[in-house]
Amino acid sequence: MAVDNLETIHQALREHLKEDQISVNETVRELHGRDESYHSMKLPDIVVFPETAAQVAAVMKVSKQFQMPVVPFGLGSSLEGHVIPQSGGITIDFSLMNKVLAVNEEDFLVKVQPGVTRTQLNKELKKYGLFFTVDPGADATLGGMVATNASGTTSVKYGVMRDQVRDLEVVLADGTIIHTGSMAAKSSSGLHLNGLFTGSEGTLGCFTEMTLRVYGIPEHITAARASFPSVKDAVEAVVSILQAGIPIARVELVDEQSVRQANLFSDTAYLEKPTLFMEFHGNEAGLKQDVEFMQEIVQGHGCEELAFETDTAGRNRLWEARHNLAYAYIHGYPGKKMMVTDVCLPISELAGAVGHARDNLLALGLPGGIVGHVGDGNFHALIMMDMNDPVEVAKAQEFNERIVLYALERGGTCTGEHGVGLGKQKYQEREHGAALAVMEKIKRALDPDNLLNPHKNIKTEAKEAIE
Amino acid sequence: MAVDNLETIHQALREHLKEDQISVNETVRELHGRDESYHSMKLPDIVVFPETAAQVAAVMKVSKQFQMPVVPFGLGSSLEGHVIPQSGGITIDFSLMNKVLAVNEEDFLVKVQPGVTRTQLNKELKKYGLFFTVDPGADATLGGMVATNASGTTSVKYGVMRDQVRDLEVVLADGTIIHTGSMAAKSSSGLHLNGLFTGSEGTLGCFTEMTLRVYGIPEHITAARASFPSVKDAVEAVVSILQAGIPIARVELVDEQSVRQANLFSDTAYLEKPTLFMEFHGNEAGLKQDVEFMQEIVQGHGCEELAFETDTAGRNRLWEARHNLAYAYIHGYPGKKMMVTDVCLPISELAGAVGHARDNLLALGLPGGIVGHVGDGNFHALIMMDMNDPVEVAKAQEFNERIVLYALERGGTCTGEHGVGLGKQKYQEREHGAALAVMEKIKRALDPDNLLNPHKNIKTEAKEAIE
Repeated sequence: MAVDNLETIHQALREHLKEDQISVNETVRELHGRDESYHSMKLPDIVVFPETAAQVAAVMKVSKQFQMPVVPFGLGSSLEGHVIPQSGGITIDFSLMNKVLAVNEEDFLVKVQPGVTRTQLNKELKKYGLFFTVDPGADATLGGMVATNASGTTSVKYGVMRDQVRDLEVVLADGTIIHTGSMAAKSSSGLHLNGLFTGSEGTLGCFTEMTLRVYGIPEHITAARASFPSVKDAVEAVVSILQAGIPIARVELVDEQSVRQANLFSDTAYLEKPTLFMEFHGNEAGLKQDVEFMQEIVQGHGCEELAFETDTAGRNRLWEARHNLAYAYIHGYPGKKMMVTDVCLPISELAGAVGHARDNLLALGLPGGIVGHVGDGNFHALIMMDMNDPVEVAKAQEFNERIVLYALERGGTCTGEHGVGLGKQKYQEREHGAALAVMEKIKRALDPDNLLNPHKNIKTEAKEAIE
Repeated sequence: MAVDNLETIHQALREHLKEDQISVNETVRELHGRDESYHSMKLPDIVVFPETAAQVAAVMKVSKQFQMPVVPFGLGSSLEGHVIPQSGGITIDFSLMNKVLAVNEEDFLVKVQPGVTRTQLNKELKKYGLFFTVDPGADATLGGMVATNASGTTSVKYGVMRDQVRDLEVVLADGTIIHTGSMAAKSSSGLHLNGLFTGSEGTLGCFTEMTLRVYGIPEHITAARASFPSVKDAVEAVVSILQAGIPIARVELVDEQSVRQANLFSDTAYLEKPTLFMEFHGNEAGLKQDVEFMQEIVQGHGCEELAFETDTAGRNRLWEARHNLAYAYIHGYPGKKMMVTDVCLPISELAGAVGHARDNLLALGLPGGIVGHVGDGNFHALIMMDMNDPVEVAKAQEFNERIVLYALERGGTCTGEHGVGLGKQKYQEREHGAALAVMEKIKRALDPDNLLNPHKNIKTEAKEAIE
């Protein structure tokens, strides 16, 4: 970017933001040039730290005036390059907009700013006997979680991020501020903008306030670990549990490689076999009956060890081990980068898909393992690769592609919860067919200059930042 | 419409449809000129009965060629004029596309054509131990229910129509056929077209195939009727039940006027007091504990009579009485037309809103009563009016407006489940503010000639049919 132009833009931003809310510092730009994925770093030209929706709107107007791309940034925990500014431009960091604005106990709603993280929210909610259900593992910001339609371990019972969104305050490309919903639990009024903006990956607007649904902390919680002779047995047990109508709250597959990695990292001593980590929420009597029924089912599928975690400490240890799995792999393979596949299939196709993924991991000789939110039909293969070894990188990419194509051929999606970002764009046409043109029309209608997080989600010709 | 032009259009349609799939018969047109609402009849110029998506696409192309509006039609059970062809044109009746195409037990999915009704589907599903949850009372077509994002008595537990939509085959304005989703239980791929097209009221495209989520019939079901001294007590009991985290499956308010009407029509002898009709689904032990807890709560709110319906016959009688309430009113006021309000508010505002509605019913001297899906914060005032009495009509409209404005001022929506249609357009700007322009942009991007159900949902300048 030509320095005089940058200085002009800087000056334009100064009219709306304080000096310490604008940075062109190299280190700051580097912190905003990458995420937790394997995608290459690209630097923004300027990073801004707004405190209000009005300031975000002002940044949008500057972006428009100078035809400079804008990329919203939470904490950079994306696994698909969402926050990497492919064409430079202005990155909007929401870390100063990190307040829980209101807890409305009676309506089971909270109003938050986008920079609030999920553990920060849950700490606040605990005082009210409430909790926020969506749990992607990483301590992401809620703005980022809405942007990617995140989900995680509890979605099998409580739904994904989109199911929790009651209203979003959004700043559009032209600086207009809209609300996408209301406080009502349901509505048939107008078009469903809550759903459209959730998962839009910063390509349609920036969130500045969000009203989200929360739940009462369950009366009783029981967690369990069930180990099986094979991944196939474990997955089939899950299908039977769902078929039986047991309202399971969490059911995670962790294959033997991943249990081993967890034991190494989290200092646990879990049986190193394909395992289901489960959790049940409910009233005391109902939960007891659910758990007994589950016990019968897993035994029918050859369960070799069933261990219950009834106290909070044991339960927390279990879920921490699960959540730290990605870090356990990264820690176990120093110098390597992680690629995570993220397909989601109809549950009837899950056992086949997981088997296919394991066969391919083995055939390609890639180090890694499989974990998954199997109650939703969503699983991840975590592959460790040396980015300096082109053969390993090519193999990892080949693996990812095989997994995606297998899923798409069977009614699945290329991404269950991580989002499209940079990594899944090449599969969009294959997955959506003629519907992709509808998405592109919507994008063009709302962001005609293609300034909002270009190159992400919807493929459109982006304005390049002035070199 | 000039007859030569009509003949030309008829001829163009004949190239794609058989003669008996096209009608210009006056009686047929009249049957497609009204719904169950108080809105005035307008006739379509032609009615077509396609059998395939390809035929629907051909109709769309004829519509475009002659710039003639197209209105999709299910069974005409709309309460807001959705299917009334305000500018004439072609009505597409989906009654020949009424097949349940596939029941996929393992994935809890069904694939249906849009003309299938919900009782038809449930009859088919029963063979598999499954059921379709959404229950708006009327035996509507599933296509119509997706188009208005219908809901009803069970949404408090199972969600609204939008929550059940996994994929839609949609014919767009230009005849392109798209799929809006996949078979996967969740996805973060692309923009959320499932959500956008659900509730779009025929303004963005016509559905030709729908994949919907179904559930296993619950192991145990208990229904109950609880009578209270006042509507306020009943509503406050509901808030307490929700606060307690009891996973209630249905909770319907029926005020004393409506219990009286139900007793007259359904030959029941329920206590004529403000009553909650409830239902609980679950395993035996859990349900028992839920019901005991509910019992404690309603007693704490002054419950005067609590009657359980444990056998199927009693339970069916209860829900039939509830579902027939609209007909009970119509039957009770021969010659009058029904207007139904449909606001939905945050639950904390519900008692106030119902009280406000009752006060206004009384003040305006309108005959009617109040019922509602109170677990969602959604209630209906059913008002009977003589369409030939301009004073009564004006009063009913004034009442509807007061109810809507009260809800909008408190974070609610003008329509919880009936949709915008003709009746709620005037409140769209008030409810959505600047977001309305976003909806209009989406409409224009997908239907630039404004041929798809013009004058409904999104306000746009419609092409008038050639007079």
